[in-house]
Amino acid sequence: MAFAFTVHATDARARTGTFTTPHGPVETPAFMAVGTLATVKALDPADLTAMGAQMILANAYHLHLRPGDEVVRDLGGLHRFMAWDGPILTDSGGFQVFSLEGLRTVREEGVEFRSHLDGSARFFSPESVMRIERNLGADVVMQFDHVVPGQSPEAPAREAMERSVRWLARCLDAFERLSERPLSALGSRLWAGAGGGGRQDVSNAEALPAPAGAESREPTDESRAAPLATPPLPQALFPIVQGGIHPHLRRESAAAIAGMHDWRGFAVGGLSVGEAKPDMYAMLDVVDEALPRDRPRYLMGVGFPEDLVEGVRRGVDLFDCVAPTRMGRNGAAFTLDGRLNIKRTEFRRDARPLMPGCACATCTRFSRGYVRHLFASDEILGLRLLSLHNVHFLVALMRDARAAVAAGAFDAWSREWLARYLSKSKTGAP
Amino acid sequence: MAFAFTVHATDARARTGTFTTPHGPVETPAFMAVGTLATVKALDPADLTAMGAQMILANAYHLHLRPGDEVVRDLGGLHRFMAWDGPILTDSGGFQVFSLEGLRTVREEGVEFRSHLDGSARFFSPESVMRIERNLGADVVMQFDHVVPGQSPEAPAREAMERSVRWLARCLDAFERLSERPLSALGSRLWAGAGGGGRQDVSNAEALPAPAGAESREPTDESRAAPLATPPLPQALFPIVQGGIHPHLRRESAAAIAGMHDWRGFAVGGLSVGEAKPDMYAMLDVVDEALPRDRPRYLMGVGFPEDLVEGVRRGVDLFDCVAPTRMGRNGAAFTLDGRLNIKRTEFRRDARPLMPGCACATCTRFSRGYVRHLFASDEILGLRLLSLHNVHFLVALMRDARAAVAAGAFDAWSREWLARYLSKSKTGAP
Repeated sequence: MAFAFTVHATDARARTGTFTTPHGPVETPAFMAVGTLATVKALDPADLTAMGAQMILANAYHLHLRPGDEVVRDLGGLHRFMAWDGPILTDSGGFQVFSLEGLRTVREEGVEFRSHLDGSARFFSPESVMRIERNLGADVVMQFDHVVPGQSPEAPAREAMERSVRWLARCLDAFERLSERPLSALGSRLWAGAGGGGRQDVSNAEALPAPAGAESREPTDESRAAPLATPPLPQALFPIVQGGIHPHLRRESAAAIAGMHDWRGFAVGGLSVGEAKPDMYAMLDVVDEALPRDRPRYLMGVGFPEDLVEGVRRGVDLFDCVAPTRMGRNGAAFTLDGRLNIKRTEFRRDARPLMPGCACATCTRFSRGYVRHLFASDEILGLRLLSLHNVHFLVALMRDARAAVAAGAFDAWSREWLARYLSKSKTGAP
Repeated sequence: MAFAFTVHATDARARTGTFTTPHGPVETPAFMAVGTLATVKALDPADLTAMGAQMILANAYHLHLRPGDEVVRDLGGLHRFMAWDGPILTDSGGFQVFSLEGLRTVREEGVEFRSHLDGSARFFSPESVMRIERNLGADVVMQFDHVVPGQSPEAPAREAMERSVRWLARCLDAFERLSERPLSALGSRLWAGAGGGGRQDVSNAEALPAPAGAESREPTDESRAAPLATPPLPQALFPIVQGGIHPHLRRESAAAIAGMHDWRGFAVGGLSVGEAKPDMYAMLDVVDEALPRDRPRYLMGVGFPEDLVEGVRRGVDLFDCVAPTRMGRNGAAFTLDGRLNIKRTEFRRDARPLMPGCACATCTRFSRGYVRHLFASDEILGLRLLSLHNVHFLVALMRDARAAVAAGAFDAWSREWLARYLSKSKTGAP
């Protein structure tokens, strides 16, 4: 079995486990850094490996638009493209296209939308998104879903939840058909064999259209990067529980999904999209009850340090969020005592690291004074050093959470952690 | 002796050697990457170590303005500030202030100029620049010199050359007085001792003024980065041969400098500043004859790959230039077959590395297609990957040049290298 999930320890509803993928294991609970365009912004894959990050995320929507999912496929798939040999998850683009208010039309068949880059007309359906995610080649691929804002009333929340379930059935059907065929039958040149520069002639009706860049020169064999003779590894399709902030809708969604297939894992979507935090936590409580406990649960787009801790408390195993890299590029650093804005003048001569005691490659080498200087001077290294620290902070936070669960001390640990983090945050310290 | 230079092999006028500094050896000929603001733009110090770069450069002018040389001193000096434990050289700012056409007034005492950042009035003299470079704490510090454009006629070239010699004498005097005193006597707080947060009370008349950021909070002892109890390491002052493109002025300059002191090394300035390439090469021929052979020669601000090869042929040991990082940020990669613009559409599906056979951390991991995608998407990692490749290219070029000299085959090697590099460059290939 290419995918597996083993629970090692539980402490109330928090648990630790190992999620096994074709590209290696993920110790859970875990934070996945977001590499929207096949790069975790400002970081090198080696930075992620060094800090112990195990699984990362990329976005089907963005990669479909640029460079194109077929380009990624032709360059060997996401892992090879971005030189990340660990597990990858791709989001389906549901969240992105439903965020394009005014630029999209929803039908049962799918969503028509305009690219945010050039305004070109596009169409996403469960079937087209499964093809895109197959081309990208992540280990875990998300279903195409219908996302509504966090405070949506019952009627639109129900409509989106029910459509997401219907789309899930279509995704599963398309996913299974695509999984039976190696990528070489999908129009890839690189997958066609070690020697081949020519495009494979395929008669399959579902072969993808010819790559747009067919004018590009064929690399000569001797100078090409190692050709990929191995067939693509298996993928797992994750369903997404929707239902807004309405407990009964969440329960209905979870029941419908769980009854459809023996999934390798479940995602919880449509949270952290504008609803109040207590509503989000309440939905996690509901979903925790409603989903099977022997599969990993992935809370999409969450989050901030405090959200991760609250999520682990409610049985969540996987998280992702752009916050650590986005905040890092803006000069904000996570610390155990809350956030720190490195641009402030008070740090000009501060010889301390961003967070005393932090083991990251920024804090073990550089002072606040230096990092502040980099930001004051618009130096690129500053963006990297702060992003690195912030992602490391969340990776290490999940490591500490696992240790607390394993020790049967999660409740006390988490309360203490939150009290320190949140109390200092309010005063603007340190 | 903290500084030494040993010649290992010569081949015509090219030579290999080891330049020993307090922060370790430099195998010459060597290319120094430029870290203007105490960061080699877009790179991490670990990138430089991994590629075998041994010595880097920073700029006194820029660091004096931002974050301030006293801030760098208070944060432990340049090595600690930027986490680079290898040799560092600081340029004096002569080139920068003389580039501020219309914003500066030259007197025998020094140069009044306006900061390019905020227009504030500043004054650089041989004495003030020596204090700045002492605060920064590089291994090798350059004299403050008078630089004129590359095609200057004899009269202004002579005036600048003669003033540079007079300023050298003042630099040497100031440098020697500063070298007798540890930095702790210069107003530093960090150097004052392992426990001390308080400013040391010094009565020495030449103590630097109180740091501008005296309002900054004192770090508490337990959270401060390792305190610096070690006194600063010795520095070497390098003189700069000037004289424009006038052979007799270059000879006069070299003779006057060599007669003044037993220097640890010599720099050649005022080249690659607008003069024709044959003029630059002719001046290198003149200076090679005029300078002692048992000291390293540093050709300032040069250069491009072909210039490095021509410089080694004429007895140059050290080079620096912003070209590899600046070009890298603009999407241009050095290759053995000339420059490559990674933004071009033809690279969209190109699975080859930037330069087939290259051992750098970019080429061993990423395809042209991926790097092009990063540039097309304005992703920060692209700036780093191309800068890394380009600096590695020059570091590796100097490694190959050393091997060719050691084998007594420099002439043939260099002609072959230049023929390939320059012929393909003209056709825009590869």
